[in-house]
Amino acid sequence: MTLDFTHDPARRSWVASAQAAGADFPIQNLPFGIFRRRGSAEPWRGGVAIGDQIVCLGAAQAAGAFEGLAAQAAQAAAQPVLNGLLAQGPAAWRALRHALSEGLVEGPVEGLAEGALAPRAQALRNALVPQAAADMALPLAVGDYTDFYTSLDHALNIGRLRDPANPLTPNFQWLPVAYHGRVSTLGVSGQRFRRPWGQVMAPGATAPVLRPCGMLDYELELGIVIGQGNAAGEPVALDAALDHVFGITLLNDWSARDIQFWEMLPLGPFHAKNFATTLSPWIVTLEALAPYRTPWTRPADHPQPLPYLESAGNRAAGALDIRLEVWLEPEGASRASRLSGTSFRHQYWTIAQMVTHHTVGGCALQPGDVLGSGTISGPAPGEAGALIELSKFGREPAKLEAGGERGFLLDGDTVVLRGWCEAPGRARIGFGEARGTVLPARAAWELGPK
Amino acid sequence: MTLDFTHDPARRSWVASAQAAGADFPIQNLPFGIFRRRGSAEPWRGGVAIGDQIVCLGAAQAAGAFEGLAAQAAQAAAQPVLNGLLAQGPAAWRALRHALSEGLVEGPVEGLAEGALAPRAQALRNALVPQAAADMALPLAVGDYTDFYTSLDHALNIGRLRDPANPLTPNFQWLPVAYHGRVSTLGVSGQRFRRPWGQVMAPGATAPVLRPCGMLDYELELGIVIGQGNAAGEPVALDAALDHVFGITLLNDWSARDIQFWEMLPLGPFHAKNFATTLSPWIVTLEALAPYRTPWTRPADHPQPLPYLESAGNRAAGALDIRLEVWLEPEGASRASRLSGTSFRHQYWTIAQMVTHHTVGGCALQPGDVLGSGTISGPAPGEAGALIELSKFGREPAKLEAGGERGFLLDGDTVVLRGWCEAPGRARIGFGEARGTVLPARAAWELGPK
Repeated sequence: MTLDFTHDPARRSWVASAQAAGADFPIQNLPFGIFRRRGSAEPWRGGVAIGDQIVCLGAAQAAGAFEGLAAQAAQAAAQPVLNGLLAQGPAAWRALRHALSEGLVEGPVEGLAEGALAPRAQALRNALVPQAAADMALPLAVGDYTDFYTSLDHALNIGRLRDPANPLTPNFQWLPVAYHGRVSTLGVSGQRFRRPWGQVMAPGATAPVLRPCGMLDYELELGIVIGQGNAAGEPVALDAALDHVFGITLLNDWSARDIQFWEMLPLGPFHAKNFATTLSPWIVTLEALAPYRTPWTRPADHPQPLPYLESAGNRAAGALDIRLEVWLEPEGASRASRLSGTSFRHQYWTIAQMVTHHTVGGCALQPGDVLGSGTISGPAPGEAGALIELSKFGREPAKLEAGGERGFLLDGDTVVLRGWCEAPGRARIGFGEARGTVLPARAAWELGPK
Repeated sequence: MTLDFTHDPARRSWVASAQAAGADFPIQNLPFGIFRRRGSAEPWRGGVAIGDQIVCLGAAQAAGAFEGLAAQAAQAAAQPVLNGLLAQGPAAWRALRHALSEGLVEGPVEGLAEGALAPRAQALRNALVPQAAADMALPLAVGDYTDFYTSLDHALNIGRLRDPANPLTPNFQWLPVAYHGRVSTLGVSGQRFRRPWGQVMAPGATAPVLRPCGMLDYELELGIVIGQGNAAGEPVALDAALDHVFGITLLNDWSARDIQFWEMLPLGPFHAKNFATTLSPWIVTLEALAPYRTPWTRPADHPQPLPYLESAGNRAAGALDIRLEVWLEPEGASRASRLSGTSFRHQYWTIAQMVTHHTVGGCALQPGDVLGSGTISGPAPGEAGALIELSKFGREPAKLEAGGERGFLLDGDTVVLRGWCEAPGRARIGFGEARGTVLPARAAWELGPK
């Protein structure tokens, strides 16, 4: 993926807020989401974030802002989910993003008075809705949600708690481990969910008990959004894999650890994961992330991948330097606490490797499928992407900046994931946030009569 | 669930083939599916099987065959998927099934000449399409597919191959083990799929290889089709669980054993299961199965379930006596071989327990979700629901009736699942079949350039 005019860090928008210091959505970003005016019953619709505004793609398209491929893409994106846009493929995505960049850019327009907007820009200006006046929805009809397990440091942190001598399963270095997740409880930032119930076997007990989860945790992940899919039995080669990825969100894979330990043998997590999963509302396109692609390497003493997971392109620019942070907002607390921070560039397997491995056996991907990256933990102690790692299984609770500490999450806790990319000579772009809140568990009697 | 006139074994239809010996679809059954005329491009639509015919519900509804709740249900079922009907709930399902039973029943009609049909029956007759002239589709838009692991004998058979002293994981007796499956590769009977590729680690090897699966297997299961769902965080109590189940299909959970062994630690099967899963096209309603509900018991030396998985109703009639068989048709073979046969009544956990356990943690079910029962194996050697059990890990290949043997499946093999219910004094009803065929793996070079 080459850099073009849309990535130029000097580029500014006539939407003034796009230039604010630390803004997530400058003109170099242009992420896609689904919104409607707050509190309205109007249909959900596709939009693109610029500064603190949203371009309503349907309105802009109706006003003649787009032509050709970009117009077709905008038409598809003006629906209640983005799947139609995703199915159109990279050329359509690029045409729409480029047209938006051209229409939103600041600058004198030949033949117009100073400060006047060209017709396309006027059409876009008339299609703006303030983000503060909008509700956001899950932007996808998700067919399947797959969760990977691709952070070496996460696997080591978790594995050492279980078996210090053998923290990694033998397959970890050979394939991006993955399992299927639950679609029906995917939610968008702002998701509020009850603390789950589940069976827990206490150490030394002879029978499990049904109780509210006592070790509730978050997992800092990215959500990889599949654009065009592949037919069953038709795998995607590594160097074609990124053409199947539309973009990336933040993803919180909430986890009930005590339930997980008891239930997961022999077939994997179930209740531990299927009560809630929170995505950020804006999908940052892979195209917008192009300036932050970076070389992918392996520790020298680790085996090199099998040929189907190996290519020069993947080595040269397979990793992505996305900065990530986890924040905790206890209910009623005066301020939030930063729990950890890391970068996705440490991930042991790349997004392209995840896509290719997912399809090599014959599995079909479809537009709107979501791949969770797996928990993202970096090498340093403060870079762990889950509380169980930070608190050493709850034994060393993490200190909060506003006072107090956490071994695991308490009722009323809000966890906020943030992500952004920045580097000298490149425009900073951000992901917004994925925010979710733990509500108290249901009372036992509400499970109903026997 | 009480028995009513629709279950009367003496009841006959004016569709003569419904009375044929061994017919799967007599008037006591009336299963739902999605069809269109073979080779046509007409929209897929809902139908009900009677004998060797299909009642097109949209055509019958347009001709005035239904009134009130039954008409609403028929309207919803006349769509390309049955999800709208499923969302209407048990009263609507029952009204439509009862109206169909009344319209399809043979008998003199007061005021009409002998042999003449009443107006409703005439409307239904005009809406008949021969099954031989129809193609069938997956009848559901499946939101999530969950696979359970609830046969004690299957778990023992598999567990003994792994660890004869400890064949069961400790949780097996306490909860219906489950994991999330892949929706995008669910297919309907007739599914043909390529043998999957995957990573395999040979015994004693130091590195895995990517190769076509060498231990391809089937799994005999039932597919439990969810009708009305539940909201996230709102569990379904055991005695209400069956109100959330519309009906049951046959389900073949094709499995790649060698791939599974290498990939599944620590998070469960992935490639081993996500290349294909085959459902039978006709959903037999829970109402039609009412005569075959039977007491559910536990071996006396096993722990009794926790209270949320225990009720008098579940004990009295929680099990279902569904006879099941697996047949193998090698490519070009003169006749098929019966590999095994058992009954679902041996299952260790009931359908109601699966539904309640699925929701107790907070997970939302939605209309059209499918729960696989897990492999159904009975206590006797010839009752195993997977080839790995019958062939003892391939070491004692199963003999075929037409000659030859199978340790695992070969290219060209067609596996056919069959199911039916029968007992003295009750009408026999059947499930039809779930048929799937193994095609050769892709050639390696087709994975594409590096």
